[in-house]
Amino acid sequence: MKKRYYKKPQRKLRVIPLGGLGEVGKNMMVFEYGNDIIIVDAGLMFPEDEMLGIDFVIPNISYLQQNKNKIRGLIITHGHEDHIGGIPYILPKISPPIYCTRLTKGLIKVKLEEFKTTRPYFNTIKPGDKIQLGCFKVEFFRVNHSIPDGVGLAIYTPVGILIHTGDFKFDASQGKEKNTDISKISQLSKKGVLALLSDSCNSEIPGNTPSEKLLEKTFNHIFEKAKGRIIVTSFASQISRIQQIIDVAAKKGKKVTVSGRSMVKNIDIATKLGYLKIPKKTLIRIQNIKKIPDNKIVILSTGSQGEAMSALARMSSGEHKHIKIKKGDTVVISASPIPGNERSITNVIDDLFREGANVIYDVKMQVHVSGHPCQEDLKMMISITKPKYFIPIHGEYHHLIHHGELAKSRGIEKDRILITENGNVIEFGQNYAKITSEKIPSGYVMVDGLGVGDVGNIVLRDRQAMAKDGIFVVILTIDKKTGELVTSPDIISRGFVYMRASEELINKTRKEAIRCLKARNSRYPSNWTFIKNKIRDDIGEFLYNQTQRRPMVLPVIIEV
Amino acid sequence: MKKRYYKKPQRKLRVIPLGGLGEVGKNMMVFEYGNDIIIVDAGLMFPEDEMLGIDFVIPNISYLQQNKNKIRGLIITHGHEDHIGGIPYILPKISPPIYCTRLTKGLIKVKLEEFKTTRPYFNTIKPGDKIQLGCFKVEFFRVNHSIPDGVGLAIYTPVGILIHTGDFKFDASQGKEKNTDISKISQLSKKGVLALLSDSCNSEIPGNTPSEKLLEKTFNHIFEKAKGRIIVTSFASQISRIQQIIDVAAKKGKKVTVSGRSMVKNIDIATKLGYLKIPKKTLIRIQNIKKIPDNKIVILSTGSQGEAMSALARMSSGEHKHIKIKKGDTVVISASPIPGNERSITNVIDDLFREGANVIYDVKMQVHVSGHPCQEDLKMMISITKPKYFIPIHGEYHHLIHHGELAKSRGIEKDRILITENGNVIEFGQNYAKITSEKIPSGYVMVDGLGVGDVGNIVLRDRQAMAKDGIFVVILTIDKKTGELVTSPDIISRGFVYMRASEELINKTRKEAIRCLKARNSRYPSNWTFIKNKIRDDIGEFLYNQTQRRPMVLPVIIEV
Repeated sequence: MKKRYYKKPQRKLRVIPLGGLGEVGKNMMVFEYGNDIIIVDAGLMFPEDEMLGIDFVIPNISYLQQNKNKIRGLIITHGHEDHIGGIPYILPKISPPIYCTRLTKGLIKVKLEEFKTTRPYFNTIKPGDKIQLGCFKVEFFRVNHSIPDGVGLAIYTPVGILIHTGDFKFDASQGKEKNTDISKISQLSKKGVLALLSDSCNSEIPGNTPSEKLLEKTFNHIFEKAKGRIIVTSFASQISRIQQIIDVAAKKGKKVTVSGRSMVKNIDIATKLGYLKIPKKTLIRIQNIKKIPDNKIVILSTGSQGEAMSALARMSSGEHKHIKIKKGDTVVISASPIPGNERSITNVIDDLFREGANVIYDVKMQVHVSGHPCQEDLKMMISITKPKYFIPIHGEYHHLIHHGELAKSRGIEKDRILITENGNVIEFGQNYAKITSEKIPSGYVMVDGLGVGDVGNIVLRDRQAMAKDGIFVVILTIDKKTGELVTSPDIISRGFVYMRASEELINKTRKEAIRCLKARNSRYPSNWTFIKNKIRDDIGEFLYNQTQRRPMVLPVIIEV
Repeated sequence: MKKRYYKKPQRKLRVIPLGGLGEVGKNMMVFEYGNDIIIVDAGLMFPEDEMLGIDFVIPNISYLQQNKNKIRGLIITHGHEDHIGGIPYILPKISPPIYCTRLTKGLIKVKLEEFKTTRPYFNTIKPGDKIQLGCFKVEFFRVNHSIPDGVGLAIYTPVGILIHTGDFKFDASQGKEKNTDISKISQLSKKGVLALLSDSCNSEIPGNTPSEKLLEKTFNHIFEKAKGRIIVTSFASQISRIQQIIDVAAKKGKKVTVSGRSMVKNIDIATKLGYLKIPKKTLIRIQNIKKIPDNKIVILSTGSQGEAMSALARMSSGEHKHIKIKKGDTVVISASPIPGNERSITNVIDDLFREGANVIYDVKMQVHVSGHPCQEDLKMMISITKPKYFIPIHGEYHHLIHHGELAKSRGIEKDRILITENGNVIEFGQNYAKITSEKIPSGYVMVDGLGVGDVGNIVLRDRQAMAKDGIFVVILTIDKKTGELVTSPDIISRGFVYMRASEELINKTRKEAIRCLKARNSRYPSNWTFIKNKIRDDIGEFLYNQTQRRPMVLPVIIEV
């Protein structure tokens, strides 16, 4: 009892997910202790269906803005969009120094070129490096993923060591220098791991994730069998996949050309930095493919998610400048759909079939393997690290739940499995860890054109309403002195009914508007709010009865 | 050469898909010979993502309207929405007599109750029946599917026998009286089958479709293990599934209640007609579940596709009147997602997990089996019927392509596999069949509220534009005599920017509008079309430069 008085105020480690927990995308994890904050990753996410017109979504960093002076650094685990895409937007606000590997740095730089933002201070690190950021020491270890130069982190904090896997997989076929560094992780585990934060998005898939090498055989087979051109689409950031395709093409004496801006840029930077090795004379300009026989051509293309303006989508709809799909073409979709994109990918596949191409995707033979760990891999990571606490990260809520079950099966006690979502705070003290009741702002920050965060619920709700049943503007021009209508009410409508075929409805609605105007209180003839509300309600109801649609009714009163 | 002169003009059988070929949904197939037409099925389809605000899509029947006097009947193979959903809309236009089985008739009647349309003339048929419709003789055979009382058709035409499978699966565990009638199909094949039209939607899935009975064991297991309430969601029309769940519940001494309008209605009609057998005192009213211990309750619910207003979605968001999800609840999603619904289902699952429920869906154990045939089943159907020609039906284009490949593997020659889509005509003559170059109107007919087919490309395009970047209305009130502005330009905008925070932008735009007005040709000061176009272009450009968004700009000029 006596001693307590002299004790220093106990500090706690706070682990705060600002993105990626309860969703796939916009990953960002914050570690805070006393006066020090480090941030891991700053990704972007593609909008949900109901976020009409939104370009993408980034993490809410208002907590970081408030604690800007505490920030010691932003660590990026690898160069995928869901880890680096938010950087251009957060840089002007908190401008932290960035710590990442060479390729990751190259990809971030490419990204930043499109923005007129301040250039960050980069610290290039490599696996094995240790850096001190405030009270945190961070040690990097190599992980294998669908992009080279990925790292996981051992974060030494005053309360213990945390392991953050980043995105990873185990791939023993890649050779020691490329696989996830199991021996380093094992060494770390000997020091005692307080908590493991591990990639969850494949936690529902049984077994082990197959090696990337598995595809070599498949590509060999496809490239041999194809009689005409071969078009392969994958994520532009899937550098390892691109390497494999180029290698197989070169071996078979084929030329490779690239279509799609992001693919061109990524191949360029990865080649410059030495992460992609292209045999001489293999790469040709797309303009030159006509000079080469069809069976010598491989086209690497963007559009694996069916994106409307992508190279592959343009080929499928006959709008690509250089490539017209024809009978004999073989198209390989070397990717799996991000949830929500199934429809658009299928539409592209069907259009390619219609044009006569043979389309190969995962139903026929395996032309894609995941870059993330499946259940057995996840169990292995838990077994190696032997953490006291377990925090599933990077996944939708059901992924986190199932990852938690895997941890339980590996002997982690239920109350040491901390399943939580963006905006919650996990607190680590002496001999305890808990999810507190504190809430940190972590809602969606939507990017639309130049606007970052300015599209809120009101704008979005209006877009949704107009998307559903259109808009109906009723303009009443009124004599200021007499309070009488000067002209017949003007009506403009879009997205509701085809106006030219609806004259009768419009005329009836005009009469309805005049009736509303007459119904006003004669003592307050200029109570325009009353009139406007009446028009909105009455005409809304009238139109619904006539059509069973509810356009957004906008009354406008102009006094002249 | 001489003889030809005396020959009767040769008639041809025309097979015209108006729906379901190149898509999943709104199935409709037309058979025409001379003066006779028969129609098979009249379904509806749910709208694609880009069909904003559309309730659903039905087949285009303008060809049938033009040939109304030839129509001998509409045959419905079974009672699913994608086979009966279009009936209320086509009845007023072509009013054909309907031929279907008892349960199918019951489900159509339930559907028609919501519409003030003329009642059709029903002819109830059963498997084994033969009917004559003009020159066509139609013989019905039993098929097994995820709804009872389904039939396939043998259509005897002047050029040969066609077999139309409808939707089917083979399910040997169901007992002879419920399985697809293989011996009847074998008998038909002895007569020689000119063409087989067969269900394609699972043509990419290897193996055989498992029996519905397989689920009995799973449900037994789940119902035994669950400590609290059990909530099972499935399609409301999945009568066989509902029967299984009720049986298992009754066996375990549990009570069953039903939530969701379509589920209530379908259970009601299926029970009345004897297709669903509910043990006495098993069904209880939802209001009464509070009187019963949690572990005695089974709730059958709609919402297996994550539909926003469904019973399950309301439970997941805490908005259900009677059921509040709590820890201990077990939710079983006994359905697979229709492509495009993956996102909304996942959102519902995550919300249920967040409320503390244990959610069981296909990743954990098989709680759903398909009602459609997989590759081995499809090959079996081809092997039994031994058709001369093969027409894959009911599927997206890639399903049709892969079904065609299966036919090829069963020895059907490539040029006898007729892969085609809605609106094309397959012609059968003496000793030939071909896809002609004729095009029959088969575009989307969209239903929105009371409007059927009135939402066309213009309305849809406007909805899409407003959904993306909102609307921007510029109103100029102008003195008729002087041509000068009477008031400052009025600006109304929705879904573009948050107006209260954008005063500066709005003021700048007002100035821009005034500039446009001044720029008019002084010789034709009232050339409003010129002014309007200028405002649309200039202000559109101005707003894009300011925001990189493109709201729909609507200029309005009011002369007073």
